[in-house]
Amino acid sequence: MTRLEKQIQFIVEVDKVKNIFRQTYLSDGERKENDAEHSWHLALSAILLKEYVSEEVDLLKVITMVLIHDLVEIDAGDTYAYGSVGVNDKREREEKAAERIFSILPIEQGEYFRKLWEEFELYETEDAKYAHLLDNFQPILLNDASEGKSWREHCVRKEQIYKRNEKIKETSEVIWEEMQKIVEKNVKLGNIQE
Amino acid sequence: MTRLEKQIQFIVEVDKVKNIFRQTYLSDGERKENDAEHSWHLALSAILLKEYVSEEVDLLKVITMVLIHDLVEIDAGDTYAYGSVGVNDKREREEKAAERIFSILPIEQGEYFRKLWEEFELYETEDAKYAHLLDNFQPILLNDASEGKSWREHCVRKEQIYKRNEKIKETSEVIWEEMQKIVEKNVKLGNIQE
Repeated sequence: MTRLEKQIQFIVEVDKVKNIFRQTYLSDGERKENDAEHSWHLALSAILLKEYVSEEVDLLKVITMVLIHDLVEIDAGDTYAYGSVGVNDKREREEKAAERIFSILPIEQGEYFRKLWEEFELYETEDAKYAHLLDNFQPILLNDASEGKSWREHCVRKEQIYKRNEKIKETSEVIWEEMQKIVEKNVKLGNIQE
Repeated sequence: MTRLEKQIQFIVEVDKVKNIFRQTYLSDGERKENDAEHSWHLALSAILLKEYVSEEVDLLKVITMVLIHDLVEIDAGDTYAYGSVGVNDKREREEKAAERIFSILPIEQGEYFRKLWEEFELYETEDAKYAHLLDNFQPILLNDASEGKSWREHCVRKEQIYKRNEKIKETSEVIWEEMQKIVEKNVKLGNIQE
């Protein structure tokens, strides 16, 4: 197989992520969002919100990270942020998926994506922290826009949201404050449980 | 309104592009693809296929371009590549849409996106040519994977595809040859009309 044929095989394979649905609804509340749409939204937001994070962030790298961060869900499925289903063996399922999916690519491209995905999962570097900030903040915006539809369906409590998103504070004080404002508003509206 | 509030308003507004459906089917042929999924796929492909185009291409810029290139369709709708409906006033509808949508953002961010979109539409720079190559090549891959479903539904002829994609040749000889191979295979299969 030529390099290009491998790349094409990968491009067609990852098309499947368009059928992996998340628990978050689109802003109109009509249907749930899938991983490809979510990743597109994060990449675009990465460009727009960079001013709120450290200068050291490598934007191209963060964008690449968010574009691929959910590909493992093609095999491993989506594990809901505020649920308990599938949490125990999530890591194992996703490792196996990464192994299969990224090895479709020419070796050095597959290894680059695999490393980026590991970096995202480790949540330690400035780039990974910014990617996680986006990954956490975007569903809050969609939940807010859809009158807390997904929060209400899952009876999500305020403390769960603060716990899950606490590292946003380290990455951007401005986004953290905005997040709090949105959460408190939705607590008052009864969309999030006190 | 603060800068961040404007950026959030934009992020929530462009969520609507997830409901703008194209004529191309996903690789499994089960449903049509929307603009957000399509843009995600192009951004990812931009990273993978860069080796086939000129060194002068600015990858971050091309990715930004493909992430936003279809936002005008929120107001203007999708105009099918091989159809005649809506072709006459496409430009006018899209200009008006760009005006409205990009002006939600803080001025300099809105102007940057507007300029990138204009550059894409003009199809002259190396960056715009690479973005168009991706925009044209990806649906060919999805059509091929879904047994030509969209080509068959619209009775697309080989000459239409060659005409629409002829500028790929200038940008990448390798992708152009691959495209021809895929098209000729689908002509033989009866998915594309001779």
